[in-house]
Amino acid sequence: MINTAMINTAPDILRCGYVELVVSDLAAAREFYVDLLGLVITKETPDTLYLRTLEEFIHHNLVLRAGPVPAAAAIAFRVRTPEDVDLAEAHYRDLGCPTRRAAGGFVDGVGDAVRVVDPLGFPYEFFHQVEHVERLTWRYDLHRTGSLARLDHVNQVTPDLPAGIAYLEGIGFRVTEDIRDSDGVTYAAWLRRKPTVHDVALTGGDGPRLHHVAFAAHESHQILAVCDRLGALRRSDCIERGPGRHGVSNAFYLYLRDPDGHRVELYTQDYYTGDPDNPVVTWDVHDNQRRDWWGNPVVPSWYAEASAVLDLDGNPVPNRPRADPAEAAVTIGADGFSYTRAEGEERGFKLGDQV
Amino acid sequence: MINTAMINTAPDILRCGYVELVVSDLAAAREFYVDLLGLVITKETPDTLYLRTLEEFIHHNLVLRAGPVPAAAAIAFRVRTPEDVDLAEAHYRDLGCPTRRAAGGFVDGVGDAVRVVDPLGFPYEFFHQVEHVERLTWRYDLHRTGSLARLDHVNQVTPDLPAGIAYLEGIGFRVTEDIRDSDGVTYAAWLRRKPTVHDVALTGGDGPRLHHVAFAAHESHQILAVCDRLGALRRSDCIERGPGRHGVSNAFYLYLRDPDGHRVELYTQDYYTGDPDNPVVTWDVHDNQRRDWWGNPVVPSWYAEASAVLDLDGNPVPNRPRADPAEAAVTIGADGFSYTRAEGEERGFKLGDQV
Amino acid sequence: MINTAMINTAPDILRCGYVELVVSDLAAAREFYVDLLGLVITKETPDTLYLRTLEEFIHHNLVLRAGPVPAAAAIAFRVRTPEDVDLAEAHYRDLGCPTRRAAGGFVDGVGDAVRVVDPLGFPYEFFHQVEHVERLTWRYDLHRTGSLARLDHVNQVTPDLPAGIAYLEGIGFRVTEDIRDSDGVTYAAWLRRKPTVHDVALTGGDGPRLHHVAFAAHESHQILAVCDRLGALRRSDCIERGPGRHGVSNAFYLYLRDPDGHRVELYTQDYYTGDPDNPVVTWDVHDNQRRDWWGNPVVPSWYAEASAVLDLDGNPVPNRPRADPAEAAVTIGADGFSYTRAEGEERGFKLGDQV
Amino acid sequence: MINTAMINTAPDILRCGYVELVVSDLAAAREFYVDLLGLVITKETPDTLYLRTLEEFIHHNLVLRAGPVPAAAAIAFRVRTPEDVDLAEAHYRDLGCPTRRAAGGFVDGVGDAVRVVDPLGFPYEFFHQVEHVERLTWRYDLHRTGSLARLDHVNQVTPDLPAGIAYLEGIGFRVTEDIRDSDGVTYAAWLRRKPTVHDVALTGGDGPRLHHVAFAAHESHQILAVCDRLGALRRSDCIERGPGRHGVSNAFYLYLRDPDGHRVELYTQDYYTGDPDNPVVTWDVHDNQRRDWWGNPVVPSWYAEASAVLDLDGNPVPNRPRADPAEAAVTIGADGFSYTRAEGEERGFKLGDQV
Repeated sequence: MINTAMINTAPDILRCGYVELVVSDLAAAREFYVDLLGLVITKETPDTLYLRTLEEFIHHNLVLRAGPVPAAAAIAFRVRTPEDVDLAEAHYRDLGCPTRRAAGGFVDGVGDAVRVVDPLGFPYEFFHQVEHVERLTWRYDLHRTGSLARLDHVNQVTPDLPAGIAYLEGIGFRVTEDIRDSDGVTYAAWLRRKPTVHDVALTGGDGPRLHHVAFAAHESHQILAVCDRLGALRRSDCIERGPGRHGVSNAFYLYLRDPDGHRVELYTQDYYTGDPDNPVVTWDVHDNQRRDWWGNPVVPSWYAEASAVLDLDGNPVPNRPRADPAEAAVTIGADGFSYTRAEGEERGFKLGDQV
Repeated sequence: MINTAMINTAPDILRCGYVELVVSDLAAAREFYVDLLGLVITKETPDTLYLRTLEEFIHHNLVLRAGPVPAAAAIAFRVRTPEDVDLAEAHYRDLGCPTRRAAGGFVDGVGDAVRVVDPLGFPYEFFHQVEHVERLTWRYDLHRTGSLARLDHVNQVTPDLPAGIAYLEGIGFRVTEDIRDSDGVTYAAWLRRKPTVHDVALTGGDGPRLHHVAFAAHESHQILAVCDRLGALRRSDCIERGPGRHGVSNAFYLYLRDPDGHRVELYTQDYYTGDPDNPVVTWDVHDNQRRDWWGNPVVPSWYAEASAVLDLDGNPVPNRPRADPAEAAVTIGADGFSYTRAEGEERGFKLGDQV
Repeated sequence: MINTAMINTAPDILRCGYVELVVSDLAAAREFYVDLLGLVITKETPDTLYLRTLEEFIHHNLVLRAGPVPAAAAIAFRVRTPEDVDLAEAHYRDLGCPTRRAAGGFVDGVGDAVRVVDPLGFPYEFFHQVEHVERLTWRYDLHRTGSLARLDHVNQVTPDLPAGIAYLEGIGFRVTEDIRDSDGVTYAAWLRRKPTVHDVALTGGDGPRLHHVAFAAHESHQILAVCDRLGALRRSDCIERGPGRHGVSNAFYLYLRDPDGHRVELYTQDYYTGDPDNPVVTWDVHDNQRRDWWGNPVVPSWYAEASAVLDLDGNPVPNRPRADPAEAAVTIGADGFSYTRAEGEERGFKLGDQV
Repeated sequence: MINTAMINTAPDILRCGYVELVVSDLAAAREFYVDLLGLVITKETPDTLYLRTLEEFIHHNLVLRAGPVPAAAAIAFRVRTPEDVDLAEAHYRDLGCPTRRAAGGFVDGVGDAVRVVDPLGFPYEFFHQVEHVERLTWRYDLHRTGSLARLDHVNQVTPDLPAGIAYLEGIGFRVTEDIRDSDGVTYAAWLRRKPTVHDVALTGGDGPRLHHVAFAAHESHQILAVCDRLGALRRSDCIERGPGRHGVSNAFYLYLRDPDGHRVELYTQDYYTGDPDNPVVTWDVHDNQRRDWWGNPVVPSWYAEASAVLDLDGNPVPNRPRADPAEAAVTIGADGFSYTRAEGEERGFKLGDQV
């Protein structure tokens, strides 16, 4: 039961717990996240909204804070014990990262926590103490279109995938799926702590930037209902991509853009990954079905755009360019190529070495 | 109860009953329609397949006939009585159209019928006598992915919408929805006999061509399951457009292309239109949500491509060009414009004059 | 196109259009039908509520009127033309039934109409003129749990099935399904005007009583969501039976009881019946799956209880007893018998003579 | 990251991995589990079937072995490391339980394992080494009605709940929900290792007996489709209870009985429970919605019947009677009472102390 390699070196991360976003117009953001998506308000102040999903019992999964420039201020992970916050602080200090401790928490509803700028430039937070609130699982009278049940994951853009993966494995994440090419270039990777496909995805590109935050629903019709409602409200232009079925993760998905351009994914039905020998699924970057199982094209904005992230003083972290080829470049247009059925293969396809 | 205007002049059409398609490779077509879409084989001969949907009790909804060039050979409507076949024959003779009568039916399972080349150039058939077969509604043991329950409609491409609509109204069809612009140009119209949104849609374009045949399922997840299965079989490239929600008709849809390029729509959940004063819904051609309620773009091939149709001797009917502007031309690219929220309107949108 | 047998003798009925119920507590009824079931208020007065479904364009599908004793005051059918109201009046006079004409309509939103006490003792109304209102099909922002789209049918309890069926066939209804035994006793029958399984069902029992009013949704999950919401509001005791799948009609169903005990069915996905030779499906009364395809038992109250109906003066119509055996009596308890798989049949079952 | 209390004393259990059932007619069991429920055959021998769910990558989730008397031969848990098998063996020896080690595994596809008769009398197995097989998540071409994705949990009948709970907590399980009364009697408890509501439920009653094995699907319509298919095959009598929504766990459920009477649950959509301070939900035994959120009654057989379990020599373990009151006795019939809305509570109900 003891993983000796990690004793005293890394915090025991439970899951992605909440994200703090800076939004330029809090009222517009409130309408988007509360009125359109049905997230529940735990607490509201003049400049901050604390929102949670329907099955959450900790204080919040999303903090919206009014500010001059839209950005991601924190990606916060819950750890197993109060002591794991200490381990996190020590771990990132050892890595040479800026760290900051707040015994009373950085936001309402959360206690002792540490924030760091991680080796990839992302503002990560680790916390355990948290205010409990009512889990609204059974409160169907409060469920709205979408019925978003859980915060599922964040997706981050970073230039250097192998280094990013190694760093996350060092704090206990495990890769469940990735996208590569035959030259060994990695284009994206999915890593988990809780036993779903991911708590964190890394997408290759200029970064650090936050690609999206994903909330999980239970059934695909709940996601379709969000689309229908957005159409009725003449807000269909906030649908960026989907709905569709991912190849990676097998989840049913929809990508929205909030009024500041922050990307939100609605997501349902990936699979259990909790065994230590869970097979990694590797997708060929030229496989047309890797990002949409039905072969529908990825829109260019989905590859190109993402949210700035802030350092511990609230300043945007400058981006570094990706040196490896970009996924969009090798799969779209004249220079890329892709396939639905690979030549010369009996089944026309091989889903990585998943056994 | 008597519509005197139509006595003795037009047949009483019940519904779109079946379509006969010429396919270049019957085995490939069989795999598509039977193995992938789950249509049920009523009868099979070396060069012809008679297929039906799960809730059909007449012999077939689709005839696939092997032939040198893919085309639509007949669009067949069931009429209320045997005498309505006589009325149909007389009606089209009066219109000056070529007609041909077959007392024993043109295809297996159907009795006395008349085929005509209608004023728009389409091969229409009218029949009443038909062999009954088992309605498989309750035979869930035979239902396959998709669970296609009914033939719903055909969509036809024709250059001249107003004339086409007037002709169809003359044989008892009623418009339920249409797409127009502020100059009075009609781009498409939906017309019904059975009380759904349509048995026939007319789409403006060079024609006569068959745009698609649509089969109805009961629930949207059944259509999603078809997508998932096509992905698993590495046949996702037969998905042309969707899945999505139509603005027009409000139906959930998916467009596929069969191995010959014939377009098939899977369709579910439009609305009851059976009252004589059923409100017509008119959509602005520049309304982004008219063809996809979620604002997802229509792929160019969907506008451009359609199946040739055959005359009574089996020869392709030459196309006439559309003189009015094309919908794709006025809505896509530099010259078109469209909107999600119309300027200056309180709700940002008006759904035609549907009251 | 002319059905000579019916010229000048019977009105051309389009569909079941609305039901008027007397309720003892209008506020409680409003909470049930509007807050719980999501019906839309077209008009509200101190003692009357006019409600409609989401896809309706006529003024209302349900009138709730405050009164001392819960009862059904009218079952109203829409007819094709204004003249059909005259035909209806003449037809029922010829049948010797009490009739009453109201040029301005009996309720708000409806014009010239006739009410009758039909040969079975039910208060039927026939109307054509009606105020149009917005069809809310696309207004997903107004859809609530359940998303009830249409009024589908009424189910009436009457002692004498064969006479009732003959009378309804005389005004143009057609039987689509029935339940019988091998001695020729009919226990229930389903009859339609619009091409679904029914506008009217007759259930054998002491009558005249209204068994239930049914509203149609599009997908089964919408009905499950009603159950979940009733649970959350601690109103699960208004669920009387289901959810389940009917054998008869193949529809997915749920039966609720309103605060006065009026029974409401939520219903989805029966099949097209519009062809004149639509096969009748006959079920054996001893077939366990006839009323629930999954074999779940019918609760006794469902057989025993129903709403009183009013005559043209608003007085309850006395009940006559059923002489034939009751379905509950022959299928439940010591004297009844039933089967899931009939002995000696190859498939263990035969779905009537539906071909 | 170190739970010192458990070092060297208990195995690190990942999840319920498989169940071995003895069946009297292997062909009939094969038809039930493979043809009706769509489980996938990993391996088949003349007297044994190894079956798995669609998203499983270990060799099997269910072993069906032909034998004279239907019974549960093993409930097998996967542990994190090979060393955890040693810990399990030592732990149960310390508890004074019979243990048996099989370096080559007790069944095909599994390596080194230990079987024990646990303090409650159940045959538990602990294993780590296992043969990997293809995860069929993306193989929608192989998915059948039901699309059972995972083995979710087992439910065990035991006389003494508090002792049973304490013992399971001793090997690392945590209670997520339970059913109690105001006198402190516990009627049932749900305990988890993987972060769902449970891997093991304990139900109070004469035992040890296996109440049921549960497989998880992704969407509720997949469970409804199983019901429809069972109806079509005239096998509806294998439906014992449901479909419905549980109060406990909030999952959508269906209970079936296999040809030997072994109970199988189809289950979908409980919630994440992985945080150490996950709130326990306590239900009042008199709350009508605890076992069915819609208030539908539990059938008596569901309370009364369960499968015998075998000891390490294959002999049935004798049952001990429950001393505490039985749930059925206190909730059904003249002596029990229950409520939908508790008197005197503002919301009419309180969902335990879940905060």
